Amino acid sequence: MANTNPARGMRDFLPSDVRKREYVIGIIKSVYQKYGFEPLETPSVENLETLMGKYGEEGNQLIFKILERGEKIQKKLAEGSIKSENELSDLALRYDLTVPLARVVANYKDKLPKFFKRYQIQPVWRADRPARGRFREFYQCDVDAIGSSSMVVEAELISAVSEILERLGFDDFLIHVNHRQILTSILNASGIPKDLHIETLVAIDKTDKIGMDGVVEELNKRDIPIENILRLVNFLLDTYKLKAERLKADTELFEAAKKAVEVSKNADEVKTIDEIVVNSPKTNDLVTERVLAFITGDNLGKNAIEDLRKILKITKKILERNRVFFNLSLARGLSYYTGAIFEIQVPDLAGSLGGGGRYDGLIGMFGKEQIPACGFSLGLERILVVMEERGMFPPELQTNSADVMVTIWNEESIAESLKLANELRSQDLRVLVYPEADKLGKQFKYAGQINVPFVCILGENELAENKVAVKNMVTGEQEIVDRQSVGEKVKSKK
Amino acid sequence: MANTNPARGMRDFLPSDVRKREYVIGIIKSVYQKYGFEPLETPSVENLETLMGKYGEEGNQLIFKILERGEKIQKKLAEGSIKSENELSDLALRYDLTVPLARVVANYKDKLPKFFKRYQIQPVWRADRPARGRFREFYQCDVDAIGSSSMVVEAELISAVSEILERLGFDDFLIHVNHRQILTSILNASGIPKDLHIETLVAIDKTDKIGMDGVVEELNKRDIPIENILRLVNFLLDTYKLKAERLKADTELFEAAKKAVEVSKNADEVKTIDEIVVNSPKTNDLVTERVLAFITGDNLGKNAIEDLRKILKITKKILERNRVFFNLSLARGLSYYTGAIFEIQVPDLAGSLGGGGRYDGLIGMFGKEQIPACGFSLGLERILVVMEERGMFPPELQTNSADVMVTIWNEESIAESLKLANELRSQDLRVLVYPEADKLGKQFKYAGQINVPFVCILGENELAENKVAVKNMVTGEQEIVDRQSVGEKVKSKK
Repeated sequence: MANTNPARGMRDFLPSDVRKREYVIGIIKSVYQKYGFEPLETPSVENLETLMGKYGEEGNQLIFKILERGEKIQKKLAEGSIKSENELSDLALRYDLTVPLARVVANYKDKLPKFFKRYQIQPVWRADRPARGRFREFYQCDVDAIGSSSMVVEAELISAVSEILERLGFDDFLIHVNHRQILTSILNASGIPKDLHIETLVAIDKTDKIGMDGVVEELNKRDIPIENILRLVNFLLDTYKLKAERLKADTELFEAAKKAVEVSKNADEVKTIDEIVVNSPKTNDLVTERVLAFITGDNLGKNAIEDLRKILKITKKILERNRVFFNLSLARGLSYYTGAIFEIQVPDLAGSLGGGGRYDGLIGMFGKEQIPACGFSLGLERILVVMEERGMFPPELQTNSADVMVTIWNEESIAESLKLANELRSQDLRVLVYPEADKLGKQFKYAGQINVPFVCILGENELAENKVAVKNMVTGEQEIVDRQSVGEKVKSKK
Repeated sequence: MANTNPARGMRDFLPSDVRKREYVIGIIKSVYQKYGFEPLETPSVENLETLMGKYGEEGNQLIFKILERGEKIQKKLAEGSIKSENELSDLALRYDLTVPLARVVANYKDKLPKFFKRYQIQPVWRADRPARGRFREFYQCDVDAIGSSSMVVEAELISAVSEILERLGFDDFLIHVNHRQILTSILNASGIPKDLHIETLVAIDKTDKIGMDGVVEELNKRDIPIENILRLVNFLLDTYKLKAERLKADTELFEAAKKAVEVSKNADEVKTIDEIVVNSPKTNDLVTERVLAFITGDNLGKNAIEDLRKILKITKKILERNRVFFNLSLARGLSYYTGAIFEIQVPDLAGSLGGGGRYDGLIGMFGKEQIPACGFSLGLERILVVMEERGMFPPELQTNSADVMVTIWNEESIAESLKLANELRSQDLRVLVYPEADKLGKQFKYAGQINVPFVCILGENELAENKVAVKNMVTGEQEIVDRQSVGEKVKSKK
């Protein structure tokens, strides 16, 4: 028998899943629109050359490639001349929403406003090994602001994303911030050769998994003098220790605060999460000072620290809660970031709910002009996982597919039943018609199975008198109602 | 320089495009929900084997295949042993929404209601030669009812689709109906061998393009006695002549009626489109009689005619206008149809706005059980093309991205400007912040370019007094307003 499962790493979304997804997407869209972002959609399939070389070596490997078609491929196969994958493919599936945006901005520059703010909510595909919470097709909810290198952009993005998460019901997320130029300056100050920066960052980003010994081991395989590796690693180790303590403190403080809010019956006694977090050690300032001392004399690095301080200062003023933290071990895998980088963390998820950053060089790879840009990507799938685990969906989402079901009395009255259904639909009710002239008992049984609250019967007597029998499936009561009052009765839910 | 166009046959949708698409999709969803259909989503990528052999030979050719990945493909390439495309691919892009639905129904049978009614609005991909209005990625808006072979299903589908088109503003569409079993019975009565039925239908479906001579030529290449070809062709020719006259009459009548409605100032004089169409020759009955005479003694054919008559009878009673017509030359390309088939036509489009039919055998190809099913697919792209050409979009869709723009006075007041923006957003206004502390003149100029109706200025004086200067960009007037009244002022649009 045929395999009826979705392909490996892919998922089917049944109606209750789709309703939850659309609920979250609806909130994301409405907040982005309030911030003046406009919708954009790009094709799922891009020219292979558009994607290659934009995501680093690991990214290249994970791109789904599409087989060439027709005579082209037939000829190559007949000749038996194919040596590499790239000769077989001209197209590929979208890997993220940022590279297509950069292509679009370069292509339609004259049609778009100077400060183009767009959101885009579409699936992307990665040929990753599927795992719990990791899929090969997943949605990204991206928001990007093009055309300005002002830190106002970063602050507004953080504000918008915070509002979305708060409106979804998250109260305990933190936004970790770092800056690619700060990382570069630290690598320079450590003496890591420029052409090994990306690989070094990739290694550092894996510290959580492989430990600092693992990082040293990976870096030692490259052509880097051991004293430079140690200079970098010792600086990071000291700062990580600080960060580790801080993070541990954050988590514990959050947990304590949540408990306090839950346990205390007396509102005055409750120390809010805000108060506790605000009073936690000021690691932001400590880390900033440490970095400035380490990269001494590096002006690009100093400017980056200035930018970071602006972001921290503005967001502290505009956010209702203190959520933004300088996290030096945040590196972000993608190779196109050039400035500030972000990641959203909640205590009960190992990965992040989303992330982003500034990529002032990417659009220039497609067009004549370098255009600054910065964006955020929310991971729909992870948001859904956490919301599911925490029971954060509103109960209305658990609704049935219909408010009322119309039965069919006999073959002759089919058109009348359908007419009644359409009358009720014109009053904005969701109406099912039982599709067959089955025994009435069978039709009622079905209505019970699918939890429809009301059932209408249009028998010969009712038809003759312009009435409808309406059965309340919860109470079991049945009532004869004027045909034009059926809608009202169903809406009253009595 | 890099190629920044979307890939061949693919499209980018800029904000104004997306707004139009979402407007149409919103109406489609809301009507389907009123009919009790529930949302379903399936992955873009299916196992290749799921799709192969479901769409006929032409369909197979047009499936986008995805290259295998990693070691598998490396090994095959190294061995140089690849002979056919199929050895290179394990996955493929979704070709329609019907085959994935059949797979889903077979896979989750126990989780779904007996009469599963679902809608699905997602893109599909076909490696067709791109042409005007034909794209390689396009959206389908599908609605299907699973589990019943009653003609109530067909009638409800026609009713739902008609309501959608009417709510979008279409007044002149016709729904052509035919039945695969009727076609089969006609081919049998003509003596066409069973194994050549599909190819014969494909040829007949092309009559518009290649003419009846072309059909005869195509059929003559196969192993069919010429007298059988002629028996079929003569029957069709006679019926087509009838149909051609009818269609010509329809079109002319519609045009005349539309003109009458437009020209006449006196409502009583207006012959409505309905009246005219209802009074046009009753070809439905004529064609039905002709077919019954031709297939004499074929019980399956007789039953199919009975089904068709039911659909015509019910829809005539429940639709406000007479729109459903028996069209014998309608064949539909896809091979999975088994019963009634539909297509929606408007006079100013060569193709159809959508189509569908009954496919009682498809789900059984995936599961143990044969489950009857019937559905309709609306072509979003074609609906959009016709709506654009006819100027059918409501003017509200041409809106700006924001209701108001907040300027930035200087570096120090950035956080205050962002705060004001957030205050206005909390009143459900769409608010842009100019991202840089540019000269005010430059900020106003930008506001003018993007057509924002109001601009807020928060200078030192205003900040000190808790006021905001609000400039109406249409009248040019500027007014000092209490900070908490800014939202009201913008909403009043004065």
